[in-house]
Amino acid sequence: MKLERVVALSGGVGGSRFLDGLTRELPSGALTAIVNTGDDFEHLGLYVCPDLDTVMYTLAAVGDELRGWGLAGETFAAMTMLRRYGGPEWFHLGDRDLATHVLRTAELRRGESLSAVTTRLCGAFGIAVRVLPMTDAPCRTLMETVEEGPLPFQDWLVRRGAQPALRGIRWDARPPPAPGVIEALEAADLVLIGPSNPYVSIDPILALDGVRAALSRKPVVAVSPIVHGRAVKGPLAAMIPALAGVAPSAAAIACHYGELLQGLVVERGDEGGIEGAAVYATDTVMRSQADRRRFARETLAFAAELLG
Amino acid sequence: MKLERVVALSGGVGGSRFLDGLTRELPSGALTAIVNTGDDFEHLGLYVCPDLDTVMYTLAAVGDELRGWGLAGETFAAMTMLRRYGGPEWFHLGDRDLATHVLRTAELRRGESLSAVTTRLCGAFGIAVRVLPMTDAPCRTLMETVEEGPLPFQDWLVRRGAQPALRGIRWDARPPPAPGVIEALEAADLVLIGPSNPYVSIDPILALDGVRAALSRKPVVAVSPIVHGRAVKGPLAAMIPALAGVAPSAAAIACHYGELLQGLVVERGDEGGIEGAAVYATDTVMRSQADRRRFARETLAFAAELLG
Repeated sequence: MKLERVVALSGGVGGSRFLDGLTRELPSGALTAIVNTGDDFEHLGLYVCPDLDTVMYTLAAVGDELRGWGLAGETFAAMTMLRRYGGPEWFHLGDRDLATHVLRTAELRRGESLSAVTTRLCGAFGIAVRVLPMTDAPCRTLMETVEEGPLPFQDWLVRRGAQPALRGIRWDARPPPAPGVIEALEAADLVLIGPSNPYVSIDPILALDGVRAALSRKPVVAVSPIVHGRAVKGPLAAMIPALAGVAPSAAAIACHYGELLQGLVVERGDEGGIEGAAVYATDTVMRSQADRRRFARETLAFAAELLG
Repeated sequence: MKLERVVALSGGVGGSRFLDGLTRELPSGALTAIVNTGDDFEHLGLYVCPDLDTVMYTLAAVGDELRGWGLAGETFAAMTMLRRYGGPEWFHLGDRDLATHVLRTAELRRGESLSAVTTRLCGAFGIAVRVLPMTDAPCRTLMETVEEGPLPFQDWLVRRGAQPALRGIRWDARPPPAPGVIEALEAADLVLIGPSNPYVSIDPILALDGVRAALSRKPVVAVSPIVHGRAVKGPLAAMIPALAGVAPSAAAIACHYGELLQGLVVERGDEGGIEGAAVYATDTVMRSQADRRRFARETLAFAAELLG
């Protein structure tokens, strides 16, 4: 089956690399990304969208691949000054990254929607993927900690180094999906779930009204973000035992998505114990551009086979 | 007479260099600066205070002396990014300068007063001068142009290169002076008016309730910002004929301040035609640190002599 309309759900680093490979393998205009905004937060009065920015910078080939956030060759002069003033240091703001936050915040305050601003910023980079924030309204991920109650996601992850023990995750609002999200899912030949954290990057998207219903009518293939029991990046490996009571594994990812999934792409050797979804095992860690393309090609071929 | 409490009214570049010399010549804690905020404006959602920043950077010895605005060794990475996004380019935002605007804006939005934020920022630089914004409330200078009606000051000056012909200047509000302004004037042994643009840097301060009344009870000495018919910096030389109908000269400055002045410090050779104020002529263009100190020393000596 020819894939003419593909939607991918994405968080930050892993998801954006997956998107980067997919857009190089799919026909021009075929790919729509629906990006988590549960991590978004206001910092120093600026509206920061960590996942949208990582997706944008990665697709524009200006992202810092090694560090996994921000821009390649970024400078931190503003941060140096902020430190001199005794301002907050826990969230690092690069100079060019700051321009993104300042411009986005100014446009949101003028009444533009996050979707419209995202389209404009991505357009400035000539990004061919249609990038949609999951929602235009605030929808903050709250980490319910055992000892300190709810902590905003960035506080928990960055300021507190993902240390406070979790007992759950919730969202502070239940906004409608952004314009185009449900339409894109309904028009899709295939929905992919990138190798992102299911709890804090994908669940926020799945929790929006109409998303699960739309997905239930579509072939859905996910990529496991767990590789040999570890997360490629971020706090996921420790979150699975805390939140699901099982060891981190590809099987735990399959179990988490449950009936939503038709297929799961996993690291070679991680096939064990997966139920309810077809499995394709390969090398899933995307280091180079070539890796990304190869991985996207294999994933799309696996999905096409499932679609029959 | 020993000068223990001196207040200086200041705009940006000229005024801040004068303050820098004064603080090195006066006893520690003797100097209070009251700084124009009529130029303040919101740009990209950030609250920018050009004169307060120039004063702060100059007194902290981190200002760019050659360019006359912003910070020495400043970088412009954020500006490059802003340009890439097609954002507004007419107002240059340095990376470290951006941190000042972002932090100030965040604190103002949190409900802090401009005075409190200014004290905090100046404190971070260890600045010994007490720096007061003229008011904590917005008080925008509007340039009444002949052909286009009122233009906000920065629009007229920066975006339009001070080209649109003027027929007057007004302010869009009449806020109370900031806490401490009237008290500082009332406690002063001497009030100095720096070599700043009288129309757009000093008049906004003089227009605040109670300021002229307080000054009328104090010895006031101004420094002429006109040197041999030219302004050391900025659009003043063209503004005097447009707004006062006379050629730009030290005499025009004396005439503008009128009865307020007891003394005027002018460039050697510019003494002609000055009425109603004692005149001291010297080399008024402050290039080096040594120049600033020498000039401050001479000005203070002249004032002390007037005070008897």
